[in-house]
Amino acid sequence: MKNGCPSADYSIHAMTETLLTIDCPDRVGLLARLTQFIATRGGNLREVHQFTEETSGWFFARMAIETKTLSVTIPKLREEFSALGSELKADWNIADHAQPKRTVLMVSQSGHCLADLLWRWRSGDLPMEIVAVVANHETFRSVVEREGLRFIHVPIAKETRAADFEKVGTLLRNLRAELVVLARYMQIIPESLCTEFTGRIINIHHSFLPSFIGANPYKRAFERGVKLIGATCHYVTPVLDEGPIIEQEVVRVEHFHNPDDLLRLGQDCERLALARGLRYHLADRVLIHGNKTVVFRD
Amino acid sequence: MKNGCPSADYSIHAMTETLLTIDCPDRVGLLARLTQFIATRGGNLREVHQFTEETSGWFFARMAIETKTLSVTIPKLREEFSALGSELKADWNIADHAQPKRTVLMVSQSGHCLADLLWRWRSGDLPMEIVAVVANHETFRSVVEREGLRFIHVPIAKETRAADFEKVGTLLRNLRAELVVLARYMQIIPESLCTEFTGRIINIHHSFLPSFIGANPYKRAFERGVKLIGATCHYVTPVLDEGPIIEQEVVRVEHFHNPDDLLRLGQDCERLALARGLRYHLADRVLIHGNKTVVFRD
Amino acid sequence: MKNGCPSADYSIHAMTETLLTIDCPDRVGLLARLTQFIATRGGNLREVHQFTEETSGWFFARMAIETKTLSVTIPKLREEFSALGSELKADWNIADHAQPKRTVLMVSQSGHCLADLLWRWRSGDLPMEIVAVVANHETFRSVVEREGLRFIHVPIAKETRAADFEKVGTLLRNLRAELVVLARYMQIIPESLCTEFTGRIINIHHSFLPSFIGANPYKRAFERGVKLIGATCHYVTPVLDEGPIIEQEVVRVEHFHNPDDLLRLGQDCERLALARGLRYHLADRVLIHGNKTVVFRD
Amino acid sequence: MKNGCPSADYSIHAMTETLLTIDCPDRVGLLARLTQFIATRGGNLREVHQFTEETSGWFFARMAIETKTLSVTIPKLREEFSALGSELKADWNIADHAQPKRTVLMVSQSGHCLADLLWRWRSGDLPMEIVAVVANHETFRSVVEREGLRFIHVPIAKETRAADFEKVGTLLRNLRAELVVLARYMQIIPESLCTEFTGRIINIHHSFLPSFIGANPYKRAFERGVKLIGATCHYVTPVLDEGPIIEQEVVRVEHFHNPDDLLRLGQDCERLALARGLRYHLADRVLIHGNKTVVFRD
Repeated sequence: MKNGCPSADYSIHAMTETLLTIDCPDRVGLLARLTQFIATRGGNLREVHQFTEETSGWFFARMAIETKTLSVTIPKLREEFSALGSELKADWNIADHAQPKRTVLMVSQSGHCLADLLWRWRSGDLPMEIVAVVANHETFRSVVEREGLRFIHVPIAKETRAADFEKVGTLLRNLRAELVVLARYMQIIPESLCTEFTGRIINIHHSFLPSFIGANPYKRAFERGVKLIGATCHYVTPVLDEGPIIEQEVVRVEHFHNPDDLLRLGQDCERLALARGLRYHLADRVLIHGNKTVVFRD
Repeated sequence: MKNGCPSADYSIHAMTETLLTIDCPDRVGLLARLTQFIATRGGNLREVHQFTEETSGWFFARMAIETKTLSVTIPKLREEFSALGSELKADWNIADHAQPKRTVLMVSQSGHCLADLLWRWRSGDLPMEIVAVVANHETFRSVVEREGLRFIHVPIAKETRAADFEKVGTLLRNLRAELVVLARYMQIIPESLCTEFTGRIINIHHSFLPSFIGANPYKRAFERGVKLIGATCHYVTPVLDEGPIIEQEVVRVEHFHNPDDLLRLGQDCERLALARGLRYHLADRVLIHGNKTVVFRD
Repeated sequence: MKNGCPSADYSIHAMTETLLTIDCPDRVGLLARLTQFIATRGGNLREVHQFTEETSGWFFARMAIETKTLSVTIPKLREEFSALGSELKADWNIADHAQPKRTVLMVSQSGHCLADLLWRWRSGDLPMEIVAVVANHETFRSVVEREGLRFIHVPIAKETRAADFEKVGTLLRNLRAELVVLARYMQIIPESLCTEFTGRIINIHHSFLPSFIGANPYKRAFERGVKLIGATCHYVTPVLDEGPIIEQEVVRVEHFHNPDDLLRLGQDCERLALARGLRYHLADRVLIHGNKTVVFRD
Repeated sequence: MKNGCPSADYSIHAMTETLLTIDCPDRVGLLARLTQFIATRGGNLREVHQFTEETSGWFFARMAIETKTLSVTIPKLREEFSALGSELKADWNIADHAQPKRTVLMVSQSGHCLADLLWRWRSGDLPMEIVAVVANHETFRSVVEREGLRFIHVPIAKETRAADFEKVGTLLRNLRAELVVLARYMQIIPESLCTEFTGRIINIHHSFLPSFIGANPYKRAFERGVKLIGATCHYVTPVLDEGPIIEQEVVRVEHFHNPDDLLRLGQDCERLALARGLRYHLADRVLIHGNKTVVFRD
């Protein structure tokens, strides 16, 4: 226990369960083969969601497997599953939740999402290992370091942007980041990094996408006179604010709210949408298919 | 097509899909056996939700099976499944959505839920066969009859209540009602009828249960000064407003709303909660377990 | 009472209250002058909302005045107020709610909003006089006529569009329409009509504007993979879907919802957003300023 | 600036505005007299909400007065207003937002609300002066002290409860607390303290009151099988969980959520409802009348 906060207890639950996520072309008997595979190795299923999208004929499934009755280890399970996976032409993953994902948070000068994520991580609601917080400003050094976490300042300047982001890329590789969370980072990620970390960079955009793509969404929402504002948690792709959406949240606003009020009210949406989207990702509850997501919510 | 409204088209979709719903004690390999059973008969699974409740160790599943590739008829499928069902000590059902449920609507003098249900039924959103509307007042005879539906007036008087409800019971039996919907019926159903039609009477209560059980919930909500009011769709049991909850809806209210405003705003909650709860039931998406429900929402 | 539905009772409440709405440049002592004006004529204020927008320095107010203690008639009150109104360079209105607005509903082939409006009007929730329902298809003639309302079919054809809409314009003038409600009319209103009826045409758009302006919003929402869909009630201006927004509503959707599901779920948003926006307008609770609205909700 | 967080900037806005809140029996011309009083002293009104409750005939108003044009000081304004206040038999207050309220936070062993309040206070969203955090456990000492705030541990034991709470009472008096916030304090406040601090103790209850009054609301919500859970921010009175409600928030839950999930999801409701309710109180936007509140939301 650090700083008077209860330490994360997710490892206990994680060690009793593994997750198989899979998507592939549909066929008759597919779920039977998968469940059979698990059953013959003694695995009990706590929760299964399977869903075939009608238009594309694509099969998606998420299976939570109790590990205590399994007759094989997780690595062995993976090895044995790989032949089946290949045969089905499937994208699949057997998660090892005992190993929380190595995560890098990136921030700029707005700290509401960072503070929220740190608290939820500390409380055990977000099972990740924060290997560093990378920022283009020094603003939140002490907020981060007092949690016993590493804070790395990588300034981004207009003139040296390409080189600066090469430093970021090198850093992410050296840190062996499995996930990057842009907690209001306010910088456009270069295409090469987006591609290298496909499906592994999560952003929170401060509007209800596809409304108000780009800069100053609250100001534009104020000018348009919308009656609800929102936030969108999505994977980052090279096209700005166009990546697969994981979660969205909205709040009602009225004529008496000025742009500062929208910003204040919107921040609660941002925090909730990011925390939920991130939690789904960390629990392997999100499958990406094309530019959309299948989210098995918890 | 009647009265210029499009006729219900649910039969088309219903004929391409059947649903297996089941709940029983959990064991290793259970879902594998079920999916195997379907696969060996050529059935493809469009959507599967399975969930085991940790505290009770109870297994719940809902499987949507494409019928066009099935090698057996639905009645045959049922017959063959019954041995497995017995072995698993399961409550189970294989639905035949080509046969919409024979449904009786019951109303009193508030028509907002009735009007909403009639419209949704007419639009094809509620796949039921309305065999009659039974009312303790004449108020909505023409509203019902102009839809080409049967309206039956069974007055309920304080002194003759027991006998009046025997008439209602006889009527429901003669109509071979598979489902009874209390669309603001405003009468307490006798215990014997509740028991006879367990899990087949759906009520809409005009409060967010368990708040404001019983009479005059809006008035009491006003007096308590709550900031949200709501409505609850639930199965009727002998204990008033205590049956398994299917769906709830709320709306924000403010100090300037008087009891009439609460009633007006609450009616939108009632209509939505009832329509959604009823739709889930008609699609065999609700499993009752003890005093709770498992709802596989659509 | 017609068709077994309670008749509208709004006239009773309307006769006890009048509304002064006003917007103008702000100055010190403005509300004092207005309230003084009312008080010296014996008017009691039930509810006052006043609000000055900081950025524009514009003053907005809505005052509900009890009429029973007024020493002058409503027409006299108007006459006496006009000098003050001119001096303040104000847009103002003193409503006469004993005279519900002459309203024309316009529909095409989707009836969910029409059915909802008819029911709410019949219940007394929407204090308007429906002088006609104008449609470009015959679909809902009987639904309308059985309410004792006038149904007028004005077909709109691609080749004769301009002439067809001249007929519509003539019709609206002959009917002395004070308000036009596009209840899923699905036709773009010509600029000349938009201008002639500025602030008097209300539309329901089936998306959460400014997302998905134009055609097929549900299909596009499905393709984008948004997690919330919505509807927008707004005044019509010559620029498509860009008029002042009165009300918006959203509903959560998931990956398993197909375009038909979005349509079904979105219709509930459309009905609620239109009914609420229309109600605010009918109660003179909406002030238009530039391309935005001030809505004093009830 | 402390710990890398922006310091509170509320003082800037607060110094340009004062608030008159008042409630009293209604009479003709009341608002005219009040606005006249302000206008003759050069005060401009930014926002006025006035509302008369029909059933009780009680008048409520909140007036935001721009101070820069005022010809008198705030203390002088108060002095001059007191005669009018007496004449009207009014409860009234002219706030001095340059002086944030002296506030004591009280916590036990759940820190989610505390962490949230500290962050919002630090960001300037909650204009209060936190004079101390009082806790019956040591759990959050470092979380509090690292913010530069005073942490006071007052253990509460079953056997010495009365004496322990006398210590708390003495402490609150010595700290000259104007407001006490029970941020999941989990102890029942003795009647004498409730009475002494009437309207000045705010609690967050982890259920949607009046559902699940008392202990273990999430567990009871789970057992009842409700489909929405919530939180309630209210003033504390001697009757447990029965005080005037300021704000409520809800979130949808499903059958697959266990009691731990309800707790996790409910915490987001608690944080939002408490933060909003507290903000309204600090901005003098809440008027208590009997056991209800009038909340002029921002």
